[in-house]
Amino acid sequence: MGYREFTIEGRNAVTEALRSGKPIDKLFILDGCQDGPIQTIKREAKKSDTIIKFVTKEVLDHMSETGKHQGVIAQAAAYEYAQVSDIIENARKKNEPPFIFLLDNIEDPHNLGAIIRTANLAGAHGVIIPKNRAAGLTAVVARTSAGALNYTPVAKVTNISKTIEELKKEGMWFVCADMDGTTMYDLDLRGPIGLVIGNEGEGVSRLVREKCDFIASIPMKGDIDSLNASVAAGVLAYEIVRQRLS
Amino acid sequence: MGYREFTIEGRNAVTEALRSGKPIDKLFILDGCQDGPIQTIKREAKKSDTIIKFVTKEVLDHMSETGKHQGVIAQAAAYEYAQVSDIIENARKKNEPPFIFLLDNIEDPHNLGAIIRTANLAGAHGVIIPKNRAAGLTAVVARTSAGALNYTPVAKVTNISKTIEELKKEGMWFVCADMDGTTMYDLDLRGPIGLVIGNEGEGVSRLVREKCDFIASIPMKGDIDSLNASVAAGVLAYEIVRQRLS
Repeated sequence: MGYREFTIEGRNAVTEALRSGKPIDKLFILDGCQDGPIQTIKREAKKSDTIIKFVTKEVLDHMSETGKHQGVIAQAAAYEYAQVSDIIENARKKNEPPFIFLLDNIEDPHNLGAIIRTANLAGAHGVIIPKNRAAGLTAVVARTSAGALNYTPVAKVTNISKTIEELKKEGMWFVCADMDGTTMYDLDLRGPIGLVIGNEGEGVSRLVREKCDFIASIPMKGDIDSLNASVAAGVLAYEIVRQRLS
Repeated sequence: MGYREFTIEGRNAVTEALRSGKPIDKLFILDGCQDGPIQTIKREAKKSDTIIKFVTKEVLDHMSETGKHQGVIAQAAAYEYAQVSDIIENARKKNEPPFIFLLDNIEDPHNLGAIIRTANLAGAHGVIIPKNRAAGLTAVVARTSAGALNYTPVAKVTNISKTIEELKKEGMWFVCADMDGTTMYDLDLRGPIGLVIGNEGEGVSRLVREKCDFIASIPMKGDIDSLNASVAAGVLAYEIVRQRLS
């Protein structure tokens, strides 16, 4: 487990990184540079919506670690994911019943970062995210997690509902948030628990929802539909914290 | 009270709007247009960090309401603020003890939007923000509020701590979040209450903090310092909701 940022420098290296789908957070290109290879890089960058900044040679020279940037530097992030078993082990070491966040396709990196931050402060032992479609661990996530990514293990799994099934065998219970559930204050959320947070727009997917033991609803008095995903995760996580403390 | 978006079209109108400091969310300029007035507009836009998009004539024609855009259209937002008295009146009409959010310099428009959204769903009667330094009500705020800005009144005041003093005369209590406060579960947060949320980096300012009746702390078990401001607001708001319901 661990998160680090690094640079990829030079035209071939950057082109290759973009083509192979490496998570590039930002691309710095020498201002005014218009030749063929740079056009190729810009085109590839656009495909993946990578942010491009045009900077002076001085800025590139300053950023460069190799001294051979050839007018282009990419900022990339690498995160070594944890295993689900590491998260369970983390709980065991602390002698606490496991408390795990499972994110069923959170798409916005700001939400993902804020949720990992909340998981850390609520005392959760780890976060599980799906391999596909959802936001991965980029520099934006690392930044919005306010450092939590360095402490709270994050595991990536192929199938959230399968992971729930496996963890149930270890004695865990699962709760997800949905509007038509039982008011969260009326549920017993103590013990080894997995908190499932759904997608920003669509909520928790049907398959995952069916695997959950409880559907919890957050009381809503207002005129609109739902809380922001990271706020909902925080509110529900802290109801679990409250019950664990009492 | 009310939020609406509108367009400002044509070179003089846009230049004037930018110079007078009207909140422009986005500027659309005809791609390839390089003449003097357009350069002036670009220069003014840069001063206020306005996002510029270069678009085709077809796009501008389609956006235009007047048909006379002269190659430039600005997207602006206007919000008619409520008065603090409107918020109190809102509570009275619903026959509920007032529940108000006071934001002591929230700077990030995404946080502001998410907090207004939370205020709406938690059943708060309004949100009070300071006139200076903090984020105002832009299109980003409207969008992240998920429509809540159309329902929950927002008032702008010169001085948050003076407003607290005045509202205390009406029988309100005030609670702010801070790390060295009393655990929120141990406070009685029922009755007419103002929830004070501090700045993202610095928390609640000293003057405002001194006016608060309670300092509530959210239990934190983790390795990092604090929750995201909108998550903290949500967690504390829902502790108030829980106590009001029980």
